[in-house]
Amino acid sequence: METRRKFIAKSMLALGATAIASNPVFATDSGAKAAGKITVKENDIILFQGDSITDTGRNREELGPNNTSAFGNGYALIAASSLLNKFADKNIQVYNRGISGNRVPDLIKRWDVDAIQLKPTILSVHIGVNDFWRTMDSGAKNTPQQYKQQYKELLDKTLSALPEVQLIICEPFGVNGVKSVTDAWYPDFTGYQKAAKEIAKEYNVTFLPYQTVFDKAASRGSGDYWTTDGVHTTLAGSNLMAQAWLDLIK
Amino acid sequence: METRRKFIAKSMLALGATAIASNPVFATDSGAKAAGKITVKENDIILFQGDSITDTGRNREELGPNNTSAFGNGYALIAASSLLNKFADKNIQVYNRGISGNRVPDLIKRWDVDAIQLKPTILSVHIGVNDFWRTMDSGAKNTPQQYKQQYKELLDKTLSALPEVQLIICEPFGVNGVKSVTDAWYPDFTGYQKAAKEIAKEYNVTFLPYQTVFDKAASRGSGDYWTTDGVHTTLAGSNLMAQAWLDLIK
Repeated sequence: METRRKFIAKSMLALGATAIASNPVFATDSGAKAAGKITVKENDIILFQGDSITDTGRNREELGPNNTSAFGNGYALIAASSLLNKFADKNIQVYNRGISGNRVPDLIKRWDVDAIQLKPTILSVHIGVNDFWRTMDSGAKNTPQQYKQQYKELLDKTLSALPEVQLIICEPFGVNGVKSVTDAWYPDFTGYQKAAKEIAKEYNVTFLPYQTVFDKAASRGSGDYWTTDGVHTTLAGSNLMAQAWLDLIK
Repeated sequence: METRRKFIAKSMLALGATAIASNPVFATDSGAKAAGKITVKENDIILFQGDSITDTGRNREELGPNNTSAFGNGYALIAASSLLNKFADKNIQVYNRGISGNRVPDLIKRWDVDAIQLKPTILSVHIGVNDFWRTMDSGAKNTPQQYKQQYKELLDKTLSALPEVQLIICEPFGVNGVKSVTDAWYPDFTGYQKAAKEIAKEYNVTFLPYQTVFDKAASRGSGDYWTTDGVHTTLAGSNLMAQAWLDLIK
Protein backbone atom coordinates (compact mmCIF):
# COMPACT_ATOMS: atom_id res chain seq x y z
CA MET A 1 0.00 0.00 0.00
CA GLU A 2 1.66 3.17 -1.17
CA THR A 3 -0.64 5.82 0.19
CA ARG A 4 -3.86 6.00 2.07
CA ARG A 5 -5.62 7.35 -1.02
CA LYS A 6 -4.46 4.36 -3.04
CA PHE A 7 -5.62 2.04 -0.25
CA ILE A 8 -9.04 3.67 -0.38
CA ALA A 9 -9.08 3.49 -4.17
CA LYS A 10 -8.37 -0.24 -4.04
CA SER A 11 -11.10 -0.77 -1.45
CA MET A 12 -13.51 1.15 -3.61
CA LEU A 13 -12.83 -1.23 -6.48
CA ALA A 14 -13.28 -4.23 -4.22
CA LEU A 15 -16.53 -3.01 -2.73
CA GLY A 16 -18.04 -1.69 -5.92
CA ALA A 17 -19.24 1.85 -6.43
CA THR A 18 -22.73 1.31 -5.02
CA ALA A 19 -21.43 0.46 -1.57
CA ILE A 20 -19.37 3.62 -1.21
CA ALA A 21 -21.97 6.19 -0.26
CA SER A 22 -23.28 4.27 2.73
CA ASN A 23 -19.96 2.91 4.00
CA PRO A 24 -18.80 4.86 7.05
CA VAL A 25 -15.16 4.13 6.25
CA PHE A 26 -15.40 6.40 3.26
CA ALA A 27 -17.20 9.08 5.20
CA THR A 28 -14.36 9.05 7.75
CA ASP A 29 -11.71 8.91 5.09
CA SER A 30 -12.89 11.81 2.95
CA GLY A 31 -9.84 13.94 2.18
CA ALA A 32 -11.09 17.08 3.88
CA LYS A 33 -11.86 15.35 7.15
CA ALA A 34 -8.80 13.14 7.36
CA ALA A 35 -6.39 15.98 6.78
CA GLY A 36 -8.26 18.60 8.79
CA LYS A 37 -9.73 18.65 12.25
CA ILE A 38 -9.96 15.61 14.49
CA THR A 39 -13.32 14.49 15.84
CA VAL A 40 -13.63 12.85 19.25
CA LYS A 41 -16.47 10.34 19.33
CA GLU A 42 -18.05 8.00 21.88
CA ASN A 43 -15.65 5.21 22.95
CA ASP A 44 -12.66 6.70 21.11
CA ILE A 45 -9.24 5.31 21.96
CA ILE A 46 -6.58 7.99 21.73
CA LEU A 47 -2.91 7.05 21.64
CA PHE A 48 0.13 9.31 21.95
CA GLN A 49 3.23 7.73 20.44
CA GLY A 50 6.77 8.96 20.10
CA ASP A 51 10.10 9.43 21.86
CA SER A 52 11.22 11.18 25.07
CA ILE A 53 9.25 14.32 24.25
CA THR A 54 6.11 12.19 24.58
CA ASP A 55 7.42 9.74 27.22
CA THR A 56 8.38 12.46 29.77
CA GLY A 57 9.20 9.97 32.50
CA ARG A 58 5.91 8.07 32.40
CA ASN A 59 5.55 4.95 34.55
CA ARG A 60 5.89 2.22 31.94
CA GLU A 61 4.42 -0.40 34.29
CA GLU A 62 1.07 1.39 34.13
CA LEU A 63 -0.51 -0.04 31.03
CA GLY A 64 -4.17 0.87 31.50
CA PRO A 65 -5.82 3.93 29.96
CA ASN A 66 -6.33 7.29 31.66
CA ASN A 67 -3.88 6.65 34.51
CA THR A 68 -2.11 9.80 35.66
CA SER A 69 1.26 8.18 36.29
CA ALA A 70 1.19 6.52 32.87
CA PHE A 71 1.48 9.94 31.24
CA GLY A 72 4.68 11.45 32.64
CA ASN A 73 4.62 15.23 32.94
CA GLY A 74 4.68 16.63 29.41
CA TYR A 75 2.32 17.63 26.62
CA ALA A 76 0.66 14.19 26.53
CA LEU A 77 -0.38 14.49 30.17
CA ILE A 78 -1.73 18.00 29.70
CA ALA A 79 -3.56 17.16 26.47
CA ALA A 80 -4.94 13.87 27.88
CA SER A 81 -6.23 15.58 31.01
CA SER A 82 -8.03 18.15 28.90
CA LEU A 83 -9.55 15.50 26.61
CA LEU A 84 -10.74 13.49 29.61
CA ASN A 85 -12.33 16.56 31.16
CA LYS A 86 -13.90 17.96 27.99
CA PHE A 87 -15.19 14.60 26.75
CA ALA A 88 -16.12 13.15 30.14
CA ASP A 89 -19.43 11.88 28.74
CA LYS A 90 -17.82 10.00 25.83
CA ASN A 91 -16.12 7.09 27.62
CA ILE A 92 -12.79 7.71 25.91
CA GLN A 93 -9.56 5.89 26.67
CA VAL A 94 -6.25 7.72 26.40
CA TYR A 95 -2.79 6.13 26.36
CA ASN A 96 0.79 7.35 26.23
CA ARG A 97 3.29 4.87 24.81
CA GLY A 98 6.19 7.18 23.99
CA ILE A 99 9.65 5.79 24.78
CA SER A 100 12.75 7.92 25.24
CA GLY A 101 15.37 7.64 22.55
CA ASN A 102 13.05 6.06 19.99
CA ARG A 103 13.49 6.44 16.26
CA VAL A 104 11.08 5.17 13.59
CA PRO A 105 12.68 1.68 13.46
CA ASP A 106 12.11 1.36 17.23
CA LEU A 107 8.44 2.17 16.75
CA ILE A 108 8.17 -0.40 13.97
CA LYS A 109 9.58 -3.10 16.27
CA ARG A 110 7.09 -2.47 19.06
CA TRP A 111 4.15 -1.31 16.96
CA ASP A 112 1.99 -4.43 17.25
CA VAL A 113 1.97 -4.36 21.05
CA ASP A 114 2.26 -0.62 21.62
CA ALA A 115 -0.11 0.61 18.93
CA ILE A 116 -2.12 -1.90 16.89
CA GLN A 117 -3.24 -4.02 19.85
CA LEU A 118 -4.54 -0.94 21.66
CA LYS A 119 -6.89 -0.38 18.68
CA PRO A 120 -6.56 3.41 18.67
CA THR A 121 -9.17 5.39 16.77
CA ILE A 122 -7.02 8.52 17.07
CA LEU A 123 -3.26 8.05 16.83
CA SER A 124 -0.78 10.86 17.31
CA VAL A 125 2.81 10.13 16.28
CA HIS A 126 5.68 12.44 17.18
CA ILE A 127 8.92 10.94 15.94
CA GLY A 128 12.01 12.06 14.08
CA VAL A 129 14.34 14.14 16.18
CA ASN A 130 16.41 11.14 17.29
CA ASP A 131 16.42 9.76 13.72
CA PHE A 132 18.42 12.87 12.88
CA TRP A 133 20.15 13.60 16.20
CA ARG A 134 21.97 10.25 16.39
CA THR A 135 23.67 11.10 13.09
CA MET A 136 25.08 14.16 14.87
CA ASP A 137 26.07 12.79 18.27
CA SER A 138 26.64 9.06 17.69
CA GLY A 139 27.73 8.71 14.09
CA ALA A 140 24.54 6.88 13.11
CA LYS A 141 23.84 6.63 9.40
CA ASN A 142 20.53 8.00 8.27
CA THR A 143 18.97 10.27 5.66
CA PRO A 144 15.61 12.01 5.32
CA GLN A 145 14.84 9.54 2.51
CA GLN A 146 15.41 6.54 4.80
CA TYR A 147 13.40 8.20 7.57
CA LYS A 148 10.57 8.81 5.13
CA GLN A 149 10.61 5.24 3.83
CA GLN A 150 10.58 3.81 7.37
CA TYR A 151 7.84 6.21 8.46
CA LYS A 152 5.74 5.12 5.47
CA GLU A 153 6.27 1.50 6.44
CA LEU A 154 4.97 2.35 9.93
CA LEU A 155 1.90 4.07 8.51
CA ASP A 156 1.18 1.30 6.02
CA LYS A 157 1.31 -1.21 8.87
CA THR A 158 -1.01 1.05 10.88
CA LEU A 159 -3.57 1.66 8.15
CA SER A 160 -3.61 -1.95 7.11
CA ALA A 161 -4.67 -2.97 10.64
CA LEU A 162 -6.66 0.17 11.49
CA PRO A 163 -8.05 1.62 8.26
CA GLU A 164 -10.41 4.00 10.08
CA VAL A 165 -7.86 5.51 12.48
CA GLN A 166 -7.56 9.30 12.55
CA LEU A 167 -3.83 9.93 12.24
CA ILE A 168 -1.89 12.94 13.43
CA ILE A 169 1.70 13.33 12.29
CA CYS A 170 3.54 15.74 14.56
CA GLU A 171 6.44 17.61 13.02
CA PRO A 172 9.77 17.03 14.78
CA PHE A 173 11.04 20.42 15.92
CA GLY A 174 14.20 22.07 17.17
CA VAL A 175 14.79 25.43 18.79
CA ASN A 176 18.09 26.64 17.41
CA GLY A 177 20.46 28.23 19.89
CA VAL A 178 19.32 26.26 22.93
CA LYS A 179 21.92 23.79 24.24
CA SER A 180 21.79 20.73 21.97
CA VAL A 181 20.43 22.45 18.89
CA THR A 182 23.01 24.48 16.99
CA ASP A 183 23.59 25.77 13.47
CA ALA A 184 25.25 22.41 12.76
CA TRP A 185 21.74 20.89 12.68
CA TYR A 186 20.86 22.91 9.59
CA PRO A 187 19.96 22.41 6.83
CA ASP A 188 20.13 18.62 7.41
CA PHE A 189 17.48 18.47 10.14
CA THR A 190 15.09 20.42 7.90
CA GLY A 191 15.13 17.44 5.53
CA TYR A 192 13.53 15.25 8.21
CA GLN A 193 10.90 17.88 8.96
CA LYS A 194 10.12 18.16 5.25
CA ALA A 195 9.82 14.38 5.01
CA ALA A 196 7.29 14.27 7.87
CA LYS A 197 5.23 16.96 6.19
CA GLU A 198 5.35 15.19 2.83
CA ILE A 199 4.20 11.94 4.42
CA ALA A 200 1.21 13.65 6.03
CA LYS A 201 0.29 15.09 2.64
CA GLU A 202 0.78 11.82 0.77
CA TYR A 203 -1.31 9.89 3.28
CA ASN A 204 -3.80 12.74 3.50
CA VAL A 205 -3.71 12.83 7.30
CA THR A 206 -3.50 15.63 9.84
CA PHE A 207 -0.14 17.34 10.18
CA LEU A 208 0.77 19.25 13.34
CA PRO A 209 3.43 21.82 12.35
CA TYR A 210 5.27 22.02 15.66
CA GLN A 211 8.21 23.90 14.17
CA THR A 212 5.83 26.72 13.24
CA VAL A 213 4.29 26.56 16.73
CA PHE A 214 7.71 27.06 18.36
CA ASP A 215 8.81 29.64 15.78
CA LYS A 216 5.72 31.71 16.54
CA ALA A 217 6.23 31.34 20.30
CA ALA A 218 9.65 32.99 19.91
CA SER A 219 7.89 36.35 19.82
CA ARG A 220 6.59 35.69 23.36
CA GLY A 221 9.55 34.02 25.04
CA SER A 222 13.17 33.04 24.42
CA GLY A 223 14.11 29.58 23.16
CA ASP A 224 15.10 28.39 26.62
CA TYR A 225 11.76 29.53 27.97
CA TRP A 226 10.06 26.87 25.82
CA THR A 227 12.69 24.11 25.75
CA THR A 228 15.38 22.97 28.17
CA ASP A 229 17.80 21.87 25.45
CA GLY A 230 16.24 22.86 22.14
CA VAL A 231 14.33 19.58 21.93
CA HIS A 232 12.69 18.78 25.28
CA THR A 233 10.07 21.11 26.63
CA THR A 234 9.86 23.22 29.73
CA LEU A 235 6.54 23.48 31.55
CA ALA A 236 5.62 26.40 29.29
CA GLY A 237 6.66 24.46 26.19
CA SER A 238 4.68 21.37 27.23
CA ASN A 239 1.58 23.53 27.50
CA LEU A 240 2.35 25.15 24.16
CA MET A 241 2.53 21.66 22.58
CA ALA A 242 -0.63 20.45 24.32
CA GLN A 243 -2.62 23.51 23.27
CA ALA A 244 -1.52 23.13 19.65
CA TRP A 245 -2.57 19.47 19.81
CA LEU A 246 -5.93 20.34 21.35
CA ASP A 247 -6.49 22.99 18.68
CA LEU A 248 -6.72 20.10 16.19
CA ILE A 249 -9.90 18.91 17.89
CA LYS A 250 -13.13 20.17 16.40
CA MET B 1 -4.68 41.70 62.92
CA GLU B 2 -8.11 40.15 62.87
CA THR B 3 -9.08 40.51 59.24
CA ARG B 4 -7.69 41.93 56.06
CA ARG B 5 -10.31 44.67 56.10
CA LYS B 6 -9.25 45.68 59.60
CA PHE B 7 -5.62 45.67 58.49
CA ILE B 8 -6.50 47.96 55.61
CA ALA B 9 -8.61 50.16 57.88
CA LYS B 10 -5.68 50.55 60.28
CA SER B 11 -3.33 51.39 57.42
CA MET B 12 -5.76 53.98 56.14
CA LEU B 13 -5.74 55.69 59.52
CA ALA B 14 -1.96 55.63 59.58
CA LEU B 15 -1.59 57.05 56.10
CA GLY B 16 -4.36 59.60 56.31
CA ALA B 17 -7.24 59.89 53.90
CA THR B 18 -5.47 62.00 51.29
CA ALA B 19 -2.92 59.31 50.55
CA ILE B 20 -5.46 56.62 49.80
CA ALA B 21 -6.53 57.39 46.27
CA SER B 22 -3.04 57.35 44.82
CA ASN B 23 -1.63 54.47 46.85
CA PRO B 24 -1.47 51.31 44.75
CA VAL B 25 -1.87 49.11 47.81
CA PHE B 26 -5.40 50.33 48.21
CA ALA B 27 -6.15 49.99 44.54
CA THR B 28 -5.02 46.35 44.75
CA ASP B 29 -6.81 45.76 48.01
CA SER B 30 -10.20 47.16 47.06
CA GLY B 31 -12.83 44.68 48.21
CA ALA B 32 -14.26 43.99 44.77
CA LYS B 33 -10.92 43.13 43.28
CA ALA B 34 -9.50 41.13 46.16
CA ALA B 35 -12.53 38.88 46.39
CA GLY B 36 -13.12 38.55 42.67
CA LYS B 37 -10.89 37.78 39.73
CA ILE B 38 -7.11 37.44 40.01
CA THR B 39 -4.84 39.61 37.88
CA VAL B 40 -1.49 38.32 36.64
CA LYS B 41 1.06 41.12 36.35
CA GLU B 42 4.68 41.47 35.27
CA ASN B 43 7.08 39.64 37.63
CA ASP B 44 4.29 37.96 39.59
CA ILE B 45 5.27 35.09 41.88
CA ILE B 46 2.55 32.48 42.07
CA LEU B 47 2.58 29.86 44.81
CA PHE B 48 0.44 26.74 45.11
CA GLN B 49 0.23 25.52 48.69
CA GLY B 50 -1.56 22.61 50.26
CA ASP B 51 -1.52 18.88 50.92
CA SER B 52 -1.23 15.77 48.73
CA ILE B 53 -3.83 17.05 46.27
CA THR B 54 -1.39 19.85 45.46
CA ASP B 55 1.85 17.89 46.06
CA THR B 56 1.01 15.06 43.61
CA GLY B 57 4.44 13.46 43.90
CA ARG B 58 6.47 16.55 43.09
CA ASN B 59 10.25 16.38 43.39
CA ARG B 60 10.84 18.24 46.67
CA GLU B 61 14.55 18.68 45.91
CA GLU B 62 13.64 21.00 43.03
CA LEU B 63 13.24 24.35 44.72
CA GLY B 64 13.44 26.75 41.80
CA PRO B 65 10.44 28.22 40.00
CA ASN B 66 8.86 26.86 36.81
CA ASN B 67 10.60 23.46 36.94
CA THR B 68 8.44 20.67 35.54
CA SER B 69 9.50 18.03 38.05
CA ALA B 70 8.83 20.41 40.94
CA PHE B 71 5.12 20.29 40.13
CA GLY B 72 4.16 16.61 40.33
CA ASN B 73 1.38 15.59 38.00
CA GLY B 74 -1.81 17.19 39.29
CA TYR B 75 -3.82 20.40 38.99
CA ALA B 76 -0.86 22.59 40.00
CA LEU B 77 1.24 21.28 37.09
CA ILE B 78 -1.56 21.79 34.60
CA ALA B 79 -2.46 25.25 35.89
CA ALA B 80 1.19 26.34 36.12
CA SER B 81 1.91 25.19 32.57
CA SER B 82 -1.04 27.19 31.30
CA LEU B 83 0.00 30.30 33.24
CA LEU B 84 3.56 30.04 31.93
CA ASN B 85 2.33 29.69 28.37
CA LYS B 86 -0.35 32.38 28.51
CA PHE B 87 1.80 34.90 30.38
CA ALA B 88 5.11 34.07 28.67
CA ASP B 89 5.88 37.77 28.27
CA LYS B 90 5.37 38.59 31.96
CA ASN B 91 8.40 36.94 33.56
CA ILE B 92 6.32 35.11 36.15
CA GLN B 93 7.63 32.57 38.62
CA VAL B 94 5.44 29.66 39.68
CA TYR B 95 6.04 27.33 42.63
CA ASN B 96 4.37 24.28 44.10
CA ARG B 97 5.03 23.67 47.81
CA GLY B 98 2.20 21.30 48.65
CA ILE B 99 3.15 18.45 51.02
CA SER B 100 1.17 15.23 51.37
CA GLY B 101 -0.66 14.75 54.63
CA ASN B 102 -0.48 18.39 55.64
CA ARG B 103 -3.03 20.08 57.86
CA VAL B 104 -3.16 23.78 58.71
CA PRO B 105 -0.77 23.43 61.71
CA ASP B 106 1.79 21.82 59.37
CA LEU B 107 1.52 24.80 57.04
CA ILE B 108 1.99 27.21 59.95
CA LYS B 109 5.21 25.41 60.97
CA ARG B 110 6.79 25.66 57.52
CA TRP B 111 5.16 28.90 56.36
CA ASP B 112 8.20 31.17 56.70
CA VAL B 113 10.36 29.03 54.44
CA ASP B 114 7.69 27.60 52.16
CA ALA B 115 5.57 30.68 51.65
CA ILE B 116 6.74 34.03 53.07
CA GLN B 117 10.35 33.74 51.89
CA LEU B 118 9.20 33.03 48.35
CA LYS B 119 7.44 36.42 48.38
CA PRO B 120 4.37 35.28 46.45
CA THR B 121 2.17 37.95 44.91
CA ILE B 122 -0.52 35.34 44.22
CA LEU B 123 -0.97 32.62 46.82
CA SER B 124 -3.36 29.71 46.41
CA VAL B 125 -4.02 27.63 49.52
CA HIS B 126 -5.83 24.31 49.37
CA ILE B 127 -5.97 22.80 52.84
CA GLY B 128 -8.49 21.14 55.09
CA VAL B 129 -9.34 17.62 54.05
CA ASN B 130 -6.69 16.07 56.33
CA ASP B 131 -7.69 18.39 59.19
CA PHE B 132 -11.00 16.55 59.09
CA TRP B 133 -9.95 13.13 57.76
CA ARG B 134 -7.52 12.38 60.61
CA THR B 135 -10.43 12.71 63.04
CA MET B 136 -12.07 9.87 61.10
CA ASP B 137 -9.17 7.48 60.48
CA SER B 138 -6.66 8.24 63.26
CA GLY B 139 -8.71 9.49 66.19
CA ALA B 140 -7.25 13.00 65.93
CA LYS B 141 -9.10 15.71 67.81
CA ASN B 142 -10.24 18.65 65.75
CA THR B 143 -13.26 20.82 65.08
CA PRO B 144 -14.23 23.25 62.33
CA GLN B 145 -13.79 26.02 64.90
CA GLN B 146 -10.18 25.00 65.61
CA TYR B 147 -9.50 24.63 61.89
CA LYS B 148 -10.91 28.11 61.30
CA GLN B 149 -8.86 29.64 64.10
CA GLN B 150 -5.63 28.02 62.83
CA TYR B 151 -6.40 29.00 59.24
CA LYS B 152 -6.92 32.60 60.36
CA GLU B 153 -3.57 32.50 62.16
CA LEU B 154 -1.99 31.35 58.88
CA LEU B 155 -3.62 34.17 56.93
CA ASP B 156 -2.75 36.81 59.53
CA LYS B 157 0.87 35.68 59.36
CA THR B 158 0.68 35.84 55.56
CA LEU B 159 -0.94 39.27 55.29
CA SER B 160 1.32 40.74 57.93
CA ALA B 161 4.38 39.84 55.82
CA LEU B 162 2.77 40.18 52.40
CA PRO B 163 -0.01 42.76 52.63
CA GLU B 164 -0.41 43.02 48.85
CA VAL B 165 -0.66 39.31 48.10
CA GLN B 166 -3.68 38.13 46.10
CA LEU B 167 -5.03 35.21 48.10
CA ILE B 168 -7.07 32.28 46.84
CA ILE B 169 -8.68 30.00 49.39
CA CYS B 170 -9.60 26.70 47.77
CA GLU B 171 -12.49 24.82 49.31
CA PRO B 172 -11.60 21.34 50.57
CA PHE B 173 -13.85 18.88 48.73
CA GLY B 174 -14.99 15.29 48.94
CA VAL B 175 -16.81 13.11 46.44
CA ASN B 176 -19.16 11.00 48.49
CA GLY B 177 -19.41 7.35 47.54
CA VAL B 178 -15.87 7.00 46.21
CA LYS B 179 -13.62 4.78 48.35
CA SER B 180 -12.49 6.90 51.32
CA VAL B 181 -15.42 9.30 51.35
CA THR B 182 -18.62 7.85 52.84
CA ASP B 183 -21.79 9.08 54.51
CA ALA B 184 -19.84 8.97 57.77
CA TRP B 185 -18.05 12.14 56.62
CA TYR B 186 -21.28 14.10 56.77
CA PRO B 187 -22.36 16.47 58.12
CA ASP B 188 -19.05 16.92 60.03
CA PHE B 189 -16.87 17.52 56.96
CA THR B 190 -19.28 20.20 55.77
CA GLY B 191 -18.32 22.22 58.86
CA TYR B 192 -14.73 22.50 57.60
CA GLN B 193 -15.89 23.52 54.14
CA LYS B 194 -18.16 26.16 55.66
CA ALA B 195 -15.25 27.45 57.79
CA ALA B 196 -13.02 27.86 54.70
CA LYS B 197 -15.77 29.80 52.94
CA GLU B 198 -16.35 32.02 55.98
CA ILE B 199 -12.64 32.80 56.22
CA ALA B 200 -12.51 33.84 52.55
CA LYS B 201 -15.46 36.15 53.19
CA GLU B 202 -14.07 37.58 56.42
CA TYR B 203 -10.69 38.29 54.82
CA ASN B 204 -12.36 39.46 51.63
CA VAL B 205 -10.23 37.22 49.42
CA THR B 206 -11.00 34.96 46.49
CA PHE B 207 -12.76 31.69 47.28
CA LEU B 208 -12.59 28.73 44.89
CA PRO B 209 -15.67 26.58 45.57
CA TYR B 210 -14.21 23.20 44.61
CA GLN B 211 -17.12 21.28 46.14
CA THR B 212 -19.46 23.02 43.69
CA VAL B 213 -17.02 22.31 40.86
CA PHE B 214 -17.07 18.57 41.63
CA ASP B 215 -20.81 18.53 42.31
CA LYS B 216 -21.46 20.06 38.90
CA ALA B 217 -19.05 17.63 37.21
CA ALA B 218 -21.20 14.75 38.52
CA SER B 219 -23.60 15.38 35.64
CA ARG B 220 -20.79 14.56 33.19
CA GLY B 221 -19.01 11.67 34.88
CA SER B 222 -19.23 9.41 37.92
CA GLY B 223 -17.41 10.19 41.15
CA ASP B 224 -14.64 7.73 40.39
CA TYR B 225 -14.13 9.35 36.99
CA TRP B 226 -12.99 12.53 38.76
CA THR B 227 -11.32 11.16 41.89
CA THR B 228 -9.47 7.94 42.71
CA ASP B 229 -10.65 7.82 46.33
CA GLY B 230 -13.09 10.68 46.77
CA VAL B 231 -10.26 13.08 47.63
CA HIS B 232 -7.37 12.69 45.18
CA THR B 233 -7.95 13.45 41.54
CA THR B 234 -7.78 11.36 38.41
CA LEU B 235 -6.30 12.89 35.27
CA ALA B 236 -9.78 14.21 34.40
CA GLY B 237 -10.25 15.60 37.92
CA SER B 238 -6.84 17.32 37.89
CA ASN B 239 -7.83 19.09 34.70
CA LEU B 240 -11.20 20.00 36.19
CA MET B 241 -9.41 21.57 39.17
CA ALA B 242 -6.86 23.37 36.99
CA GLN B 243 -9.54 24.81 34.72
CA ALA B 244 -11.55 26.07 37.69
CA TRP B 245 -8.39 27.69 39.05
CA LEU B 246 -7.54 29.27 35.69
CA ASP B 247 -11.12 30.58 35.42
CA LEU B 248 -10.25 32.85 38.38
CA ILE B 249 -7.74 34.68 36.21
CA LYS B 250 -9.01 37.76 34.46
